[in-house]
Amino acid sequence: MAKKYTKKHEVSYYECDINQTMTFPSMLGIVIKTSEDQSDALERGSKFVNSFGLTWVITNYSMDITRLPKVGETISITTQAMEYNKFFCYRNFWIHDAQGQELVKIESVFVLMDFVNRKMSSVNEEIIAPFESEKIKKIKRQEKIENIESGMMLPYRVRFYDIDSNQHVNNAMYFNWIIDVLGYDFLTTHVPKKVLIRFDKEVEYGNEIESHYEQVTMADGIKTRHEIRMQDQLYCEANINWKKK
Amino acid sequence: MAKKYTKKHEVSYYECDINQTMTFPSMLGIVIKTSEDQSDALERGSKFVNSFGLTWVITNYSMDITRLPKVGETISITTQAMEYNKFFCYRNFWIHDAQGQELVKIESVFVLMDFVNRKMSSVNEEIIAPFESEKIKKIKRQEKIENIESGMMLPYRVRFYDIDSNQHVNNAMYFNWIIDVLGYDFLTTHVPKKVLIRFDKEVEYGNEIESHYEQVTMADGIKTRHEIRMQDQLYCEANINWKKK
Repeated sequence: MAKKYTKKHEVSYYECDINQTMTFPSMLGIVIKTSEDQSDALERGSKFVNSFGLTWVITNYSMDITRLPKVGETISITTQAMEYNKFFCYRNFWIHDAQGQELVKIESVFVLMDFVNRKMSSVNEEIIAPFESEKIKKIKRQEKIENIESGMMLPYRVRFYDIDSNQHVNNAMYFNWIIDVLGYDFLTTHVPKKVLIRFDKEVEYGNEIESHYEQVTMADGIKTRHEIRMQDQLYCEANINWKKK
Repeated sequence: MAKKYTKKHEVSYYECDINQTMTFPSMLGIVIKTSEDQSDALERGSKFVNSFGLTWVITNYSMDITRLPKVGETISITTQAMEYNKFFCYRNFWIHDAQGQELVKIESVFVLMDFVNRKMSSVNEEIIAPFESEKIKKIKRQEKIENIESGMMLPYRVRFYDIDSNQHVNNAMYFNWIIDVLGYDFLTTHVPKKVLIRFDKEVEYGNEIESHYEQVTMADGIKTRHEIRMQDQLYCEANINWKKK
């Protein structure tokens, strides 16, 4: 059974939007910090990983949201590097409230990238061993992300503060572009219950990206489909299921 | 002597830019959280202030930066509501490193605003008393902010995530627009040593603001002058002194 790691966090006003609940960039920032803290505790921090010429890249998130963390509450974030195969590492995160109720569950896919040739590397046993993840043969199939059929678009320029101390555009930032297009009226009357997102290519500083979106009415709520593009190239795609507030 | 309040904070990767140091929005977010925590501890939190139909608004910051907090270090943030007169409250903040060295000092001006008529209110004794600030007669003169003589401009749209849980555009967000215009090359070769900023009018969701700027060479480094405008209206003005890295 893979090692678990938990930390507590008090949700601040500046991590929340007008709905009094955490923004996706804030929530993912804290989630990833938890996995970094676990890695540091196991002496497998970024310096160790970098010493092999490698760096972690996240390719997918799948989130199930019972309710978003809200201003002032203390949450606990738990992470566990569940399984890995030749190329992919599967890491889960759970956010619980002070009473131990699950608020959010996130499944993620991490890969190791060679930072010279920017190519995916096979999983290095020395890096992964202390997490005690289960080694598996199969490649876990990710839930299908539906593409946009006929959408709308807003352009965004990648800003200096969108690049974080890890030297590239933090993929939590993609949510700034994905969420913003939906507009005030939608975002103050709907809450997300499920998110699927895949990061296909890295956006860089100075790029002008296009945030495409489309809204589809489902039997049990609304689904929004999203694509971050530059001209013909797809950089990121996402589906979000929403319910009425 | 006014009461002091201190909290510790571990600087996370997502609070830092590519220079490995804290961004202004992150730093101010934590600074203001510290004053909110002090207010809560003294039972003068936002609910109490709101019960008078009032809300705190920050009009000025003056920052002296010895060095910016960096990724991974634990800082302590201290705040003290120093003095007040009929309309203005003067609050200081200090950020220290783990060895007790001062990294940043921030002087700020707070006013109470009536949130129905959006007008400045005189300082309410019941709100201010527990902080034990000194009552003064004079209005403290703020250091002059130089206007732009001939500048450049980039436009920015106010995004959904720029409005925080306090229901308006968090004025730490103005730094997103102020800093971004300076560009990657400047921002990775210069560090700020002094910031003066004044918030004149509130920017609202959906506004398209103009971030004007100008760079002036001084004997001891570079000064940048900034104005956030919409057409003829000035919303915010700032001067930042920089030194070469």
